[in-house]
Amino acid sequence: MQYPSGVRKQRNQQRMQKNKSYSNRGMTLEDDINETNKYYLAMNRAIIHKKPTPVQIVRVHYPKRSAAVITEAYFQAKSTTDYNGVYRGKHIDFEAKETKNKTIFPLANIHEHQFQHMKQITAHGGITFAIIRFTEWDETYLLKGETLLSYWEAMLHGGRRSIPLETFQKEGHMIPFHYQARVDYLKIIDELYF
Amino acid sequence: MQYPSGVRKQRNQQRMQKNKSYSNRGMTLEDDINETNKYYLAMNRAIIHKKPTPVQIVRVHYPKRSAAVITEAYFQAKSTTDYNGVYRGKHIDFEAKETKNKTIFPLANIHEHQFQHMKQITAHGGITFAIIRFTEWDETYLLKGETLLSYWEAMLHGGRRSIPLETFQKEGHMIPFHYQARVDYLKIIDELYF
Repeated sequence: MQYPSGVRKQRNQQRMQKNKSYSNRGMTLEDDINETNKYYLAMNRAIIHKKPTPVQIVRVHYPKRSAAVITEAYFQAKSTTDYNGVYRGKHIDFEAKETKNKTIFPLANIHEHQFQHMKQITAHGGITFAIIRFTEWDETYLLKGETLLSYWEAMLHGGRRSIPLETFQKEGHMIPFHYQARVDYLKIIDELYF
Repeated sequence: MQYPSGVRKQRNQQRMQKNKSYSNRGMTLEDDINETNKYYLAMNRAIIHKKPTPVQIVRVHYPKRSAAVITEAYFQAKSTTDYNGVYRGKHIDFEAKETKNKTIFPLANIHEHQFQHMKQITAHGGITFAIIRFTEWDETYLLKGETLLSYWEAMLHGGRRSIPLETFQKEGHMIPFHYQARVDYLKIIDELYF
């Protein structure tokens, strides 16, 4: 995992240059995935939606002649991943995260409930994965659920609390940027699972 | 669809009696399905969750030392069904509705987007259905997505705007009440799809 500093510097410079060409796209990973899912839906390729943020609604005001206003509500912990749906007859379930970190993805970015959910989905024949973007390099990777879960389980037994970028480069799959399917993850799912 | 009034009266009386034994359970269909899904999850039988209500969050207040409070938000239209997940390797997607109506289920209870979603899921190899409870009779039916969609499409072409109770009795599948799996719909899914 340790590169001589010269190599790392060179790699970083390459990345900085690469980064420039895509820079200021101004879209978050979530925006990009939502656009991609809309495109898949419009092309009738897959039916995948983002789950709404779970909110506990405490008070609702019903003004006359206009829409109900929620005036008190609280964010709830997520018990599942953010995205799911169906593709080529299979249940698809994934989580997406950005990190500003340059060399590691901290596992604390994904909640315990979400890891457990991914483990359950995998056990029941669904396809799970994570889409992780290293914003500093503008690199977006798909990592299979099995790989992600192996790091999580190692962490529970005292192992490291993060996944190094090198793991994404070696065991993950970089998702190229396309204009229409901005994060064209199904291309990689096709190669990995079908 | 028209019964002689004597037959209908007799049937209704039978229902009233039957209804008594289960009456005042005080649980909504949603509560029952949530409990059932929890039970399936605990038994490691299926991984099915209710999707959170979609809410557009406009204003959030962050008091010091306590949790963020959402102080302005609005309900959004649902673009999918309420429940989905994975069972025996298959994507499962369904909607659940109660009606106080005694003889029909009005199609207006399910939004156009939700019908479209069910159509898409079916086309991509997922299993879709509706769980409809006639609260007056305390009878809960599972109706296959295909049957539901045939009524919806007939309505779009000028057909009737509701599904008669008789259709649920003849083409649907009554879900018996069980103490643990209160709405044991997977038993019917096993018979219909596996």
